[in-house]
Amino acid sequence: MSGSCRSEIVRYENGSFSGRRLDDLAVEEPLEIRVEGHSIAVVMRTPGHDRELAAGFLLTEAIIRTASDVFDITTCVPAGAAAKGNVVDVALTNPGSFDAARLTRHVFTSSSCGVCSKSSIEAVLRRCRPLTDPFPVMGDLLLGLPGRLVSEQKGFSRTGGLHACGLFDCSGNLVAAREDVGRHNALDKLIGHALLEKRTPLMKHIVLLSGRASFEMMQKAHAGGISVVAAIGAPSSLAVEFARESGQTLAGFLRNGSMNIYAGEAWIHPATG
Amino acid sequence: MSGSCRSEIVRYENGSFSGRRLDDLAVEEPLEIRVEGHSIAVVMRTPGHDRELAAGFLLTEAIIRTASDVFDITTCVPAGAAAKGNVVDVALTNPGSFDAARLTRHVFTSSSCGVCSKSSIEAVLRRCRPLTDPFPVMGDLLLGLPGRLVSEQKGFSRTGGLHACGLFDCSGNLVAAREDVGRHNALDKLIGHALLEKRTPLMKHIVLLSGRASFEMMQKAHAGGISVVAAIGAPSSLAVEFARESGQTLAGFLRNGSMNIYAGEAWIHPATG
Repeated sequence: MSGSCRSEIVRYENGSFSGRRLDDLAVEEPLEIRVEGHSIAVVMRTPGHDRELAAGFLLTEAIIRTASDVFDITTCVPAGAAAKGNVVDVALTNPGSFDAARLTRHVFTSSSCGVCSKSSIEAVLRRCRPLTDPFPVMGDLLLGLPGRLVSEQKGFSRTGGLHACGLFDCSGNLVAAREDVGRHNALDKLIGHALLEKRTPLMKHIVLLSGRASFEMMQKAHAGGISVVAAIGAPSSLAVEFARESGQTLAGFLRNGSMNIYAGEAWIHPATG
Repeated sequence: MSGSCRSEIVRYENGSFSGRRLDDLAVEEPLEIRVEGHSIAVVMRTPGHDRELAAGFLLTEAIIRTASDVFDITTCVPAGAAAKGNVVDVALTNPGSFDAARLTRHVFTSSSCGVCSKSSIEAVLRRCRPLTDPFPVMGDLLLGLPGRLVSEQKGFSRTGGLHACGLFDCSGNLVAAREDVGRHNALDKLIGHALLEKRTPLMKHIVLLSGRASFEMMQKAHAGGISVVAAIGAPSSLAVEFARESGQTLAGFLRNGSMNIYAGEAWIHPATG
């Protein structure tokens, strides 16, 4: 995981300039995701693992459901040097199942003012298969995960500008970690990695987020089949509501050997009796 | 600025549960933004300042250009209690100028693989008026802004889960600050506030971001006319490229009395010499 580049900056401290130097920046570039040649999204991401990002995006946005829905993913490398392969095209096993027009209607089509937390959660849960694998996990096992993830955050340690997600099995073994300027992308890459390895839905796995847990992060984890989500940062109110409705276990503020448990506390076991 | 709610959590520390307690969570709820009754976006935001958010979103997404384009913004309060007014409708002064169909084509329409950093920057700069107000600012004035913003981050101090943006004039006086679970929303609310006060484009203003500076944050600041952007976190490579192309001044890592200057250093003056 690299994802950084060097740029000349000027340092300012103690009331004056202390000289020019090279600084590592987190790389951010657009990636256009196409399905059967139709452009469906442009995401601002850190280049690398682009096929995983496309696969994960399609799964967590409910455009595909399983690895077998994907026939092939190709990176489009143009003749001109400028684009640097910032386009991926996903060929589907069954192209007839894909309705590009449906995707342009990406906003709620409520006939009245029906947008609310409850309907957002219901809409997600309606389109996803329910989680069927709640599993017990030791509290201290969760508290040990941030240290494991930090050792994988090579881009962050250089740039201070990359989010990370780590996927762990139920024994706390690291399966994979991904970094990206966008936290949604980091999670999509992780889930896309699992999809391309034919490991989705990810039964009995834990995901650790380097930052905060929002509704969308919980929903993406759910789409990947992940029932335990831990975050070093804070969860939002809707992330907590979603976890409680969907049956996910959610812990936040994993710091200094402690954490807050927001949902599924019956599945977290203390180290001592 | 409130934006928090209380939820019962379980605290885990030193290998065991240390009891239930009430914790403050950053509120996250969907807001549907409509223009002339057409649903154009659903954003996950912290309720409050919704009219500002809608106005700012329309400006920074280039759907409107000035305050005079907005005839009225109404919060739609339905009969049912569920939706809690999570819909705003913007009436335009000249409804005929609005093409809802154009907005559904929200992805790049490159005929070849032409997506790259350079074309992303050019596309934004083509649709925006150029910044015409570069202005000199004292380095120490910038370094004093984070302390001013922290005192406005009442929601963050309770929840740890809200991003913030502060708008300052060229003398470092706070004009407004906004918090939100989404950092794009916090900036849109700030710019929407300025728009509704008929202060856009914001000549000779500074915006301070509580987190990182991405391409989209720079682009939104630019759409508001803001030529100086300071961030407590790291900028991305594309944020730096955009600032250099657009003529913005960009400083990052404003911490402990120092900062990195990524663009426009000629406009930052040292306290001494």
